Amino acid sequence: MHITPQHLQYVLRLADTALILGQRNTEWCGHGPILEEDIALSNMSLDLIGQARLLYTHAASLEQQLTGTNRTEDDYAYFRAEREFANYTLAELPHYGPLSGTAQTEKDYAVTIVRNFLYAMLMAHLWTALTGSNDEQLAAIASKSIKETSYHVHHAREWLIRFGDGTEESHRRAQAALDYLLPYTREFFSTDAVEESIAAAGIGPLTSELEEAWLTDVRTTLDEATLTLPEAVKHITTGKHGEHSEHMGFVLAEMQSLARQHPGATW
Amino acid sequence: MHITPQHLQYVLRLADTALILGQRNTEWCGHGPILEEDIALSNMSLDLIGQARLLYTHAASLEQQLTGTNRTEDDYAYFRAEREFANYTLAELPHYGPLSGTAQTEKDYAVTIVRNFLYAMLMAHLWTALTGSNDEQLAAIASKSIKETSYHVHHAREWLIRFGDGTEESHRRAQAALDYLLPYTREFFSTDAVEESIAAAGIGPLTSELEEAWLTDVRTTLDEATLTLPEAVKHITTGKHGEHSEHMGFVLAEMQSLARQHPGATW
Repeated sequence: MHITPQHLQYVLRLADTALILGQRNTEWCGHGPILEEDIALSNMSLDLIGQARLLYTHAASLEQQLTGTNRTEDDYAYFRAEREFANYTLAELPHYGPLSGTAQTEKDYAVTIVRNFLYAMLMAHLWTALTGSNDEQLAAIASKSIKETSYHVHHAREWLIRFGDGTEESHRRAQAALDYLLPYTREFFSTDAVEESIAAAGIGPLTSELEEAWLTDVRTTLDEATLTLPEAVKHITTGKHGEHSEHMGFVLAEMQSLARQHPGATW
Repeated sequence: MHITPQHLQYVLRLADTALILGQRNTEWCGHGPILEEDIALSNMSLDLIGQARLLYTHAASLEQQLTGTNRTEDDYAYFRAEREFANYTLAELPHYGPLSGTAQTEKDYAVTIVRNFLYAMLMAHLWTALTGSNDEQLAAIASKSIKETSYHVHHAREWLIRFGDGTEESHRRAQAALDYLLPYTREFFSTDAVEESIAAAGIGPLTSELEEAWLTDVRTTLDEATLTLPEAVKHITTGKHGEHSEHMGFVLAEMQSLARQHPGATW
């Protein structure tokens, strides 16, 4: 297989989004609303970080073949600059929502759940498509990740329905979180040179081709949750091109500080 | 089986120590020194919190039979006061160690590992003894927990040997953490009315009877790690009697605040 820079970049996008969302969700570790939920959320964070590790290890192999550079998963996670991260902007947002108030110190569980739902639903379709990738390693990672993602979809759906179809307050929070977050999903489906290249090479789908199926699934759950799909917006975020929100720096500072304090330490 | 208050208290001690140590270790979630270690530590935290959940559920059943009070695992975790927690003091200490400096803002991984080692080694012996408990539910929890604890021992041993037999700096940190933490293990082996009662009823061993085997195992690992067992001290901490260090309040504030902001919320 002829390795291209686009191929490497595509794998890093998948890895970075999983890592950054996994990292964000670890902020609930030990702080879940109930013990059972604390465990479920922490486990899902570990799933995402585990997927990122597999993808980084694969990226390292691609980069080695492409440029001869030897990198490790930890190099990608801990020693790249903000502009080098190619995650969707959605993944880096804090758990604060439109109803968290001006102080923005209170995490909103509805924001956490809605984001997990929108992302997991995308990945259910994307991992399925990637099981047929020409990149056998990526296809294998997809097969493993599908099972985890199915549970993530199930978990987020259950909570979304409980919130939407629950109390007046929980409905209001879920709808506000949905109105806030849905615009960020535009970035999932915007096509660029990287996606065109990997689609032409049979490595992965154009994500835009998954949009209709994704939207149908989203609508089905929202109907069940008595929530309303907000109107589409035109603005498209640019995290996957390395242009991040003001929140990204904080995520990286949290995540990278320990490893950078002890560069080259043998742990 | 005739339920006694001591029986309930004994189960709560086991639960509280697992919960508080699990909670402390979640402070590393998303902050491990390497991605692999982040996942391993987080998984072990989830094991401990999972053990605590089983034990609290069992405690709730005992308390219901004893006094007719209906409590849930979340009531025990989130709605008890500091004096009602009966964990060993060792579990509540922060990850700061004697070498963290005066600012005490930097967690010391050697403290984390040495504590996990001392506690997991105890539990390997204690869970084994509890598989023969007259309390069948407790025996079942012990059987399940033994497997998890074996891995915790293995993990902590590997790191302790790597630290002790590693660089001069890592050896120095591991020895300092050991000198700091070993005195807290006195509390494991001090006998009181609760232990005498459950031992007489065949519910569990006198932990003092496990001390020799524990110490032999600890010495074996320390020898391999080229670390020195500090001299015994006389002071015995009192966490299991509800008298905690100044650190306990911070752990509870972190852990209980969300649940207490929304009392009675249906999550």
